Amino acid sequence: MAQTKEEMRMLIRAAMGDVKSDLIVTGGKVINVYSGEILSGQEIAVVQGRICYVGPSAAHTRGAETTIVDAGGLYIAPGFIDGHTHIGHYCRPFEHLQSFVARGTTAVVASCDELASVFGYRGLKLFLDEVKRHPVRVYSLVSMVVPQDPLLCNTATFSDEEFTQALADPGVLGAGEIVSWLRLTRCDEQLLERIGIARANGRIIHGHTAGARDQKLCAVAAAGISSCHEPIRMEDALERLRLGYWTMLREGSLRQDLEQTLKPMIEQKVSLRRVMLVTDSMTPDDVEKWGHMDHVVRRAIALGLSPMQAIQAVTVNTAMYSGLDQEIGGIAPGRFADLVFLEDLEKCHVREVLIGGEPVARDGESVIRVSPMTFPAAMTDSLGLQPNVSADMFQIPCAARESKLRVIELLNSTITAERMIQVTSVSGFVEAKVSEDLMKVAVFDRHKTGGKITLGFLKGFGAKVGAVGLSVNLDENALMIVGSNDADMACCANVLAECGGGIAVVNRGEVLEKAEFRLAGVASLEPWKTVAGRLRRIQSCLRENGAPFDKPLSPLSFLTFVTLPTLRITSRGLINAKERRIVPLFVDEPS
Amino acid sequence: MAQTKEEMRMLIRAAMGDVKSDLIVTGGKVINVYSGEILSGQEIAVVQGRICYVGPSAAHTRGAETTIVDAGGLYIAPGFIDGHTHIGHYCRPFEHLQSFVARGTTAVVASCDELASVFGYRGLKLFLDEVKRHPVRVYSLVSMVVPQDPLLCNTATFSDEEFTQALADPGVLGAGEIVSWLRLTRCDEQLLERIGIARANGRIIHGHTAGARDQKLCAVAAAGISSCHEPIRMEDALERLRLGYWTMLREGSLRQDLEQTLKPMIEQKVSLRRVMLVTDSMTPDDVEKWGHMDHVVRRAIALGLSPMQAIQAVTVNTAMYSGLDQEIGGIAPGRFADLVFLEDLEKCHVREVLIGGEPVARDGESVIRVSPMTFPAAMTDSLGLQPNVSADMFQIPCAARESKLRVIELLNSTITAERMIQVTSVSGFVEAKVSEDLMKVAVFDRHKTGGKITLGFLKGFGAKVGAVGLSVNLDENALMIVGSNDADMACCANVLAECGGGIAVVNRGEVLEKAEFRLAGVASLEPWKTVAGRLRRIQSCLRENGAPFDKPLSPLSFLTFVTLPTLRITSRGLINAKERRIVPLFVDEPS
Repeated sequence: MAQTKEEMRMLIRAAMGDVKSDLIVTGGKVINVYSGEILSGQEIAVVQGRICYVGPSAAHTRGAETTIVDAGGLYIAPGFIDGHTHIGHYCRPFEHLQSFVARGTTAVVASCDELASVFGYRGLKLFLDEVKRHPVRVYSLVSMVVPQDPLLCNTATFSDEEFTQALADPGVLGAGEIVSWLRLTRCDEQLLERIGIARANGRIIHGHTAGARDQKLCAVAAAGISSCHEPIRMEDALERLRLGYWTMLREGSLRQDLEQTLKPMIEQKVSLRRVMLVTDSMTPDDVEKWGHMDHVVRRAIALGLSPMQAIQAVTVNTAMYSGLDQEIGGIAPGRFADLVFLEDLEKCHVREVLIGGEPVARDGESVIRVSPMTFPAAMTDSLGLQPNVSADMFQIPCAARESKLRVIELLNSTITAERMIQVTSVSGFVEAKVSEDLMKVAVFDRHKTGGKITLGFLKGFGAKVGAVGLSVNLDENALMIVGSNDADMACCANVLAECGGGIAVVNRGEVLEKAEFRLAGVASLEPWKTVAGRLRRIQSCLRENGAPFDKPLSPLSFLTFVTLPTLRITSRGLINAKERRIVPLFVDEPS
Repeated sequence: MAQTKEEMRMLIRAAMGDVKSDLIVTGGKVINVYSGEILSGQEIAVVQGRICYVGPSAAHTRGAETTIVDAGGLYIAPGFIDGHTHIGHYCRPFEHLQSFVARGTTAVVASCDELASVFGYRGLKLFLDEVKRHPVRVYSLVSMVVPQDPLLCNTATFSDEEFTQALADPGVLGAGEIVSWLRLTRCDEQLLERIGIARANGRIIHGHTAGARDQKLCAVAAAGISSCHEPIRMEDALERLRLGYWTMLREGSLRQDLEQTLKPMIEQKVSLRRVMLVTDSMTPDDVEKWGHMDHVVRRAIALGLSPMQAIQAVTVNTAMYSGLDQEIGGIAPGRFADLVFLEDLEKCHVREVLIGGEPVARDGESVIRVSPMTFPAAMTDSLGLQPNVSADMFQIPCAARESKLRVIELLNSTITAERMIQVTSVSGFVEAKVSEDLMKVAVFDRHKTGGKITLGFLKGFGAKVGAVGLSVNLDENALMIVGSNDADMACCANVLAECGGGIAVVNRGEVLEKAEFRLAGVASLEPWKTVAGRLRRIQSCLRENGAPFDKPLSPLSFLTFVTLPTLRITSRGLINAKERRIVPLFVDEPS
């Protein structure tokens, strides 16, 4: 990623005034994240996309063709970086970037998990090809979710060779996130092998140490896992910071942690130089409502962080951790001319955004007009399922009249309990029971022929609908149908099989809401705002039908997430996450 | 440098208590440079030289063979790092490390300039071999002084191939320092080529931008030169910090800059996260008198820096800049167990030092007993000069009775002026004139056969001695004789030729003081304290004879330094540094 000799020569000559700059920005209040100062009377000169000069006068770099931009007293910040995020769900990556850029985000460190979990190495390459087209800089992480845990998960895989090859791609920054840290504390051979490959190549590895503490947290750090974005309380954040982790505090769609993590850390006056603010993903509806990194900065300031520190935590800190200190993260010679013009420091209102010196957004809208790539047909029809699912495929036979089921109970949006529930069979089958908020869950195997379906029960979802189906879930992205009757479940499955995946809500044979995710079943090919509207309507439909969650899709998409407590489900079976083993649905059945 | 899979496995197992640690340190006040806190009630466990656990109790890692060290309430800091230094002059590198370690220094980033300037690539390898033997971690920089400026300097050289090969050595961290930044602002092809090689290999490049500002400073930064240790005033420091340079503030033997740089920066409350404290070299006599990094920390605290920030500026900041964040710089899992036990935080009094968990120093003395390597004979007799130098070799013939000389005038310890002085020839020769403090300077070519001698004149040295000779100078390390009469100059040259180089003071045929630097003419093979004593006596002898400098050897060793103003001398000739050209001794002579 370093500059070539020719690029260096051009920059040096431009700095000296021997060649003229493409752009001079003048008249702004420049936010210097290195010294922590806001400096007036500075001019920024740009050549071939990089900053060649910052100082009192760029007149010596001014030529006949040089564009002069007067910032008119606005603040000028380095482009914001989302240091850990995901851009593969709901909308294609390109649409994410189009939306983020208008909020001041000029770079993201993103995993390729969604496409990789479905297509393996091909998915990674597809992701890299997709993001390359967009001016927002995407520094990719090679997935560790392929699979996070081969015992329990059912995703596509990378060979060690593919993993090594992937790390050599210039678009790839590192590897991670290691969600299955429990495997690491047990010295899982394959994990160690991959971490070893990444480290030997000088690549960083993002952690994900939710729930780890003390000796386990030490064990993960000792292996060179250098960051974590999972602290949800101040103690978590502080313990990670102290143990040398670059500590990412999250404010995104999955969780909003800043109030519980950042606020008390500010009060305790600990050093925040190794703290970054990240989203860990934002959904289209949330970005439309709140914003992206501008929102995160605003939120941090509202919680008591100084504007300078908030901006440092989404620019230079992130660049330093990511090994991108010479590329992005500050307004200085050699760095890309990624600049955000802010009307106001406290409110972080983004007026205009430049990437590589080119205008990319203005007044909340991207002005980027490049076209995204066309995905190969196989990528847009990949669920591997014919729309001939029948109701009886969801039947759970049970010879005994009374039996005890191992039921997934939702405790909140992410955490489940394992609940043992006594049920009575009807005509030799156990059924969902709306009156007791007991629904069936079915997960389809999308990778193997034969279409194996794992069946289980879910309590606590609360939505009184016939069925809701989704092919976006962590990190399986398998078709999952949750329902209260088999006919609606079959209908829902067929609706989604028909369009290659997505989200649908069905009641009494009628499709109430639907979003088609033709790209691998994980993302729509529609525009960002269209998808935002569909997601809002789906969430609202589920809430209106009784789901007690702000975002009812969230607990469903976590049902497959085998590293969170307690009971989970993938197409491999029902899973006890803590014990890392597959357990039977019927309690008395031998496992 | 990253850990192997086996090392990671061992660390993880030790963190979990599955294998037992070698060492547990308990009862200290642990200085956490990541969070900026001082934490009591923490235990540090170590296995195979690295920290595997830090936390409330390491009992689970304790086995029958585990050594327990009770810190007895002392502060425990991460080992100090000197982020930019030189360890090749006066004493061999090994002796430097022996001396530094007792002052809390457990790692240095050091150039191999001295041996490389004499022996080229062979000198670099020799340096790497030498430092490998000592427990202090030496992260080497590949010289850019071979030569800094091929027009003006006369040193050994590296081919591009050797340069590339050197960068691949695991002992090598990066390249630098680029003293001849003027060449860089002029896009010197070879410099760009080497910077390009270093950057493409992900290596850092240390700068040296003394005197550069505004557009020139931007040009150097734009080429990816990421640090500078040359700020001597706050404005210099602040300008570099703002331009994205990792800013090294120096307190060493060459210069003591902290009062002029750090103090006002503290007062101005700028962000110091990208500031490092470095020595840029310390001589044996100074280390004996002041200390090493402990001294630098003390000095910074005395100038108003908080002890935490001072320690951060010699540990984690340096590690982060140097790409060593996972290796050193903090007390956290995965890092080497390099620990400094301090009695007092303000005074930074070092009680004990561990490297890789092993005791290496106690109460100001190294307890390391490994033997240094034996240098090949060619390295200890390398001046390439027979001791048959005669007085007439220093004669400067001049046919005209009156003529005008271009004289090097010392303005202070480092900076010279070009002074035109009218002289009268005596019997066809121009001579030194003690009454006017006008001495001759002779520089011998040590690289080419034939023993070319460049002659010039020096004003302002002040020492009324027959001759002083030295083969340590920047970065030529050529034999230089400064004298007031040709006979003593010849005697001095012969004394040094006899022992392969060093420093000698001669008066009326008598050797007043002498230090033999058998290693390449740049370093003694004697113990540190012996050399410290000799240096003290030499400096004192010159002062007693009238030299108006605290350290009279210093201005002499800078006479060859072609990148400082104004007039310099190497075996290539008299040099106008600013114009980068060789100029004649006689003003009227065509250049």
